[in-house]
Amino acid sequence: MNVEFINPFLSSMLNVMSTMAQMELIPEKPRLKKNEVAMGDVSGLIGMVSDQAKGSLSITFEGALALATMKKMVGEAPDEVNEEIIDLIGEITNMVTGGAKRMLSEKGIEFDMATPIVVSGPNHSIHHKAKGPIVIIPLKSELGRAYIEFSFDE
Amino acid sequence: MNVEFINPFLSSMLNVMSTMAQMELIPEKPRLKKNEVAMGDVSGLIGMVSDQAKGSLSITFEGALALATMKKMVGEAPDEVNEEIIDLIGEITNMVTGGAKRMLSEKGIEFDMATPIVVSGPNHSIHHKAKGPIVIIPLKSELGRAYIEFSFDE
Repeated sequence: MNVEFINPFLSSMLNVMSTMAQMELIPEKPRLKKNEVAMGDVSGLIGMVSDQAKGSLSITFEGALALATMKKMVGEAPDEVNEEIIDLIGEITNMVTGGAKRMLSEKGIEFDMATPIVVSGPNHSIHHKAKGPIVIIPLKSELGRAYIEFSFDE
Repeated sequence: MNVEFINPFLSSMLNVMSTMAQMELIPEKPRLKKNEVAMGDVSGLIGMVSDQAKGSLSITFEGALALATMKKMVGEAPDEVNEEIIDLIGEITNMVTGGAKRMLSEKGIEFDMATPIVVSGPNHSIHHKAKGPIVIIPLKSELGRAYIEFSFDE
């Protein structure tokens, strides 16, 4: 895993959450996911393909943080993860990946994005099956936690 | 959604399950997923990218069917979804998508596959966020149910 991949995904996530929802998430230090299992209630996933590498990205939200994000954005939110929240998490995943794609493109690393998929269900976990190591970046706020994870074939 | 996409994914799934695990799944009629929610315990997901279209595929298994598949393949299986089962579902997803890719290539439809992602967690559901309709194919067996779902931007 090339370390230069990490910052674009992290800064894109912080940027999207700050711009769209005025939420300042505090990232922990990015690390390799080994035996760790990050669980959440709603996750956005997206596949990435280039001539050099293939991979996948996920952003997993605790339910409370996903609901709080919608509340900050539109002033109100449902009581639990519903179709609106699922759409929002799909959109955030698309924007974060798109932002990282632009930053990586400036470094000469190009990839195409597949379309987002959103998983909902209490306490699910995500397992990236690319051949390379999995980078995980936990993010916290008073309103709950999120996890960015990604992995590329090397 | 072009109907010619459906058969390659379905026949590839039946073929993989029959070849790898001697399991004959019985497909229901493919249909468009509208308000339906298909829930399962372990899902393999993969993104697809081509010049013409982008999309995503998922194969969702009820836990009992995933465990039974491993038991048929290797003679034994754990009592619940664990890392081995997660690897198996990732591998099945890769093989099903790869088989469909070959069949579609013969029709002149080419796409690249991202790397698989596996989701585990009781009763989760998958929401494809491509712009086109979502095709769902329920499959049943005495040992449990599975669902193939896919969608492409049109």
